[in-house]
Amino acid sequence: MTLEGPRLGAHVLDAARTEFRIWAPRRERVELHIVAPREQRVPMTKNDDGCHEVIVEVGEGARYFYDLDGTDRPDPASRFQPEGVHGPSEVVSDAFEWRDAGWRGLALEDYVLYELHVGTFTEEGTFEAIIPHLDELKELGITAVELLPVAQFPGERNWGYDGVYVGAAQGSYGGARGLKRLADACHERGLALVLDVVYNHLGPEGNYLSEFGPYFTDRYRTPWGLALNFDGPQSDPVRWFFVHNALQWIDEFHIDALRVDAVHAIVDHSAVPFLQDVTSAVRTRGEELGRRVYTFAESDLNDPRVITEAERFGLGFDSQWMDDFHHSLHAILTGESDGYYEGFDKISNLARVLESGYLYAGQYSSYRQRRYGLAPKTKDGAQFVVFAQNHDQIGNRMLGDRLAALLPFERLRVVAAAVVLSPFLPMLFMGEEYGEPAPFQYFTSHSDEALIEAVRKGRLEEFDDFTWSGTPPDPHDEETFRRSKLNRSLLSQPQHRELRELYRELFRIRRETPSLRALDLSAVKAEADDERRTLVVHRGECTIVFNFGKDEQSFALPGTLMIESGARIEGDRLIVPGGTFALIAA
Amino acid sequence: MTLEGPRLGAHVLDAARTEFRIWAPRRERVELHIVAPREQRVPMTKNDDGCHEVIVEVGEGARYFYDLDGTDRPDPASRFQPEGVHGPSEVVSDAFEWRDAGWRGLALEDYVLYELHVGTFTEEGTFEAIIPHLDELKELGITAVELLPVAQFPGERNWGYDGVYVGAAQGSYGGARGLKRLADACHERGLALVLDVVYNHLGPEGNYLSEFGPYFTDRYRTPWGLALNFDGPQSDPVRWFFVHNALQWIDEFHIDALRVDAVHAIVDHSAVPFLQDVTSAVRTRGEELGRRVYTFAESDLNDPRVITEAERFGLGFDSQWMDDFHHSLHAILTGESDGYYEGFDKISNLARVLESGYLYAGQYSSYRQRRYGLAPKTKDGAQFVVFAQNHDQIGNRMLGDRLAALLPFERLRVVAAAVVLSPFLPMLFMGEEYGEPAPFQYFTSHSDEALIEAVRKGRLEEFDDFTWSGTPPDPHDEETFRRSKLNRSLLSQPQHRELRELYRELFRIRRETPSLRALDLSAVKAEADDERRTLVVHRGECTIVFNFGKDEQSFALPGTLMIESGARIEGDRLIVPGGTFALIAA
Repeated sequence: MTLEGPRLGAHVLDAARTEFRIWAPRRERVELHIVAPREQRVPMTKNDDGCHEVIVEVGEGARYFYDLDGTDRPDPASRFQPEGVHGPSEVVSDAFEWRDAGWRGLALEDYVLYELHVGTFTEEGTFEAIIPHLDELKELGITAVELLPVAQFPGERNWGYDGVYVGAAQGSYGGARGLKRLADACHERGLALVLDVVYNHLGPEGNYLSEFGPYFTDRYRTPWGLALNFDGPQSDPVRWFFVHNALQWIDEFHIDALRVDAVHAIVDHSAVPFLQDVTSAVRTRGEELGRRVYTFAESDLNDPRVITEAERFGLGFDSQWMDDFHHSLHAILTGESDGYYEGFDKISNLARVLESGYLYAGQYSSYRQRRYGLAPKTKDGAQFVVFAQNHDQIGNRMLGDRLAALLPFERLRVVAAAVVLSPFLPMLFMGEEYGEPAPFQYFTSHSDEALIEAVRKGRLEEFDDFTWSGTPPDPHDEETFRRSKLNRSLLSQPQHRELRELYRELFRIRRETPSLRALDLSAVKAEADDERRTLVVHRGECTIVFNFGKDEQSFALPGTLMIESGARIEGDRLIVPGGTFALIAA
Repeated sequence: MTLEGPRLGAHVLDAARTEFRIWAPRRERVELHIVAPREQRVPMTKNDDGCHEVIVEVGEGARYFYDLDGTDRPDPASRFQPEGVHGPSEVVSDAFEWRDAGWRGLALEDYVLYELHVGTFTEEGTFEAIIPHLDELKELGITAVELLPVAQFPGERNWGYDGVYVGAAQGSYGGARGLKRLADACHERGLALVLDVVYNHLGPEGNYLSEFGPYFTDRYRTPWGLALNFDGPQSDPVRWFFVHNALQWIDEFHIDALRVDAVHAIVDHSAVPFLQDVTSAVRTRGEELGRRVYTFAESDLNDPRVITEAERFGLGFDSQWMDDFHHSLHAILTGESDGYYEGFDKISNLARVLESGYLYAGQYSSYRQRRYGLAPKTKDGAQFVVFAQNHDQIGNRMLGDRLAALLPFERLRVVAAAVVLSPFLPMLFMGEEYGEPAPFQYFTSHSDEALIEAVRKGRLEEFDDFTWSGTPPDPHDEETFRRSKLNRSLLSQPQHRELRELYRELFRIRRETPSLRALDLSAVKAEADDERRTLVVHRGECTIVFNFGKDEQSFALPGTLMIESGARIEGDRLIVPGGTFALIAA
């Protein structure tokens, strides 16, 4: 049974009329308070389903509040918050000069992802400022641009996980219109656009949803705020509010895939979980539109149910982020083995991930202090998204330091090969392709002083154990944000340019080599040597050899070198110096 | 991967030596304080796994505490608490004169359950006092006796859901020895013994587990107390503590099946849920012992996962209690439609349950105010336990009134047919077979005054809306307990005897008629007529007709009457008076 509900928010019917609808069962009466272009107050009609609605003679650009018994509140289903999280909502028309009529989306296995943060990707920090860079991403070999969450957050600087208007593309990024232009420009180039959406909590500032209805519950908790009501009384409309949001991105913004944040932080005891509603609504909509649309889960559960179809009791995601790959690679490269890197530092662990998807599949995790995970049932590598870096893995470090700040350049070439030549969907974090050394730090721009202080304090406490190596930057300081911007001028330097060139070449080889393009994990054989610190990955006629150690190693691997970062063939042996890789074809 | 762990509690090695072991990772040192027969203090050795252990020269009957830095606490894995929840634990030997060597257990489909509360089933209120009644239960047609929880609770009067020593059979019931005698006596008669176990919370009084280790978590909540730590750090030994308990009942007490209380109240986000550990450990142990042992879930989730095997992402229970059957039947019989009976009062609802197992399979529930449930995938009726009454459905009413207090005797005959001739596993609540009119009320016997008052107040508040019909009895008042005892002397009265005789006959027919014995739901066709208030259930060559209305109804159903409560055949028509049933064979 597909979840269905009415269209929420402001919807322009024609040049002169707009329909407003909001679910607010806790209110007997809601008044529509239009503040521009001409102030007026219009009583709304409450329906049996708890929705208040009205049709008014205003058009695009009109600004409004919902008046809740004397208090003006923005529209929870707002499409645009031009004056921030406390200001009026603005009517956005669906009319847009789309040029992507022929766009049908990518096949899942062709996704090569590039995660970027709109505010720090360019100097301007807007959706439209990304457009001039799309050709270079396309040329690099990227097929899908993934944006950190863009739902309206407080202020102008935020990772996006404090969003409170889930359907309003951040005003300071350029709002709905800017995001549509970006989507259109992506499709024009054959690029997919992926959006990170947060359905496990809402941000603390500007969050007025409880005044409208039982969006939240105190039966469960999340690490980041009130839990959403997905299985209590009146949870169907709450689910619909978010499913509606998922569909809105696909319908109105032509988004190609949703990356759903922290699915493990949603507690939901119902026989048909909320997340099933999301994935099946998205899938159905894609079929209706004749477009390939996907759902990616961020999951730290190592639970195969996440990527299993609903009919088999799964959550129905097409693919999931795979932290075990990251943690294994990171621990091998950096030698870090504290915190969540505990238990990951063996090369044989990475081998296991490459063959099966998860490292932890039921064995004891010393970090979690319990048995953890279950072996995936799938052998389709496209069901896993892997990365050597992402916003979290960088930004959750005290100083937000990237691998480029931790490793010599030579090692970044090995990182590139490990990610791109893996049998999974690869993802880069913006700037990774040229070894961007700028940090990606945790930044916010709340306006509530107490909250600013609480976030600052939280950050200090989080890294209390690490004060010997400095203090974390102040999230509220604009400099923290500015410091996290990319420095593309570095591309004038050979080593940065050469790294980018290597990525380009690796993506090309991945694309053009059938045995690398095929993501069937049953065809992967990975042999680790924890003593020599080497990893040999067989994929059909291709073999990828990594030497994570310092010493040169020799392998009885006859073949032709396809690409390397220092390796050579000597007779019937492959010689791989320490800290390099080689890809050979039999 | 099966969960494994060390034997917990006191274990008699031979006549002169006993091994003590407890998981107490929070304690650096635990001292074994033996208080009888001769006081002594023995330091225990702490292992890497957080267990403290020692072997001491004492035998069965020795009483002991664990001394936690100066405070004496009973053994969390105690097998016997002769002096209550605060007193010393007692060493119990495994030695027992079992006479059930040939016992292999029942097939699941042969279960005909009889739920009883040890304290109120007999005047004595002990395990052994049940034994003289086993022959009459056997003769009635019961195949399995199910006990409400027997884990040591505070005082001598309790339903059992305040148990705190999960492995200690209630002392006032006769303790471990009494329970073993009962199990042996059941098996001697070919009866199975089922135990209700509570793994979703522990009682509030005498609960010292947190002083030993992280048994509880504050990440989740339950309606009845602290949530158990099944997915946090150090949760493996907590899981093992309970899995060990499940196995203990099977190994040491020869229990045939466990009914696991309120599985919906356990929050557990791990890829391999705790409940899977329980069901698979029990199943494996049964296979090892060559005995058929089962797990039944109490679930209000209407989630097919509960009764799906672990390999298919299920929890692995063999069968589950089915409230939808109860609620439908109860609402039809009594006309009650408030509270959780909301949405159940149509005869077509009961028809749907009979054909598929659940009524709610995704449709909106007005009581829950949300869509609820998912259609079962199974067609095996043995995966559902049905009842017209149970301890909860009776006892959760303000006055604990049974159907016999609500309905005329004639209607109780229809109830009998509905339950026994259903294609599920039938269960009676003690005394139901002869229309016991005594209430089954909520009773406790805490010793903590504040707690006594809190429970009393809670009960009053729970029924606050119903004060027009009286006030709930005081749970702590011994009279509330006494009032809930059975009055078997009623069997001298014809109507009680005749009802019992009807049950006996219905069970015989169920047993001896192949099409009724078969529990394949795909062979069930149920036709409801909500106007005439009739239900016709076809099961192979048998047809059961219920007339829940007042008026006589006539059916074009040729056949032979097998049993009825007033119906007759006239020519080729079956005539069923109001408030009666008939079973005919084609």
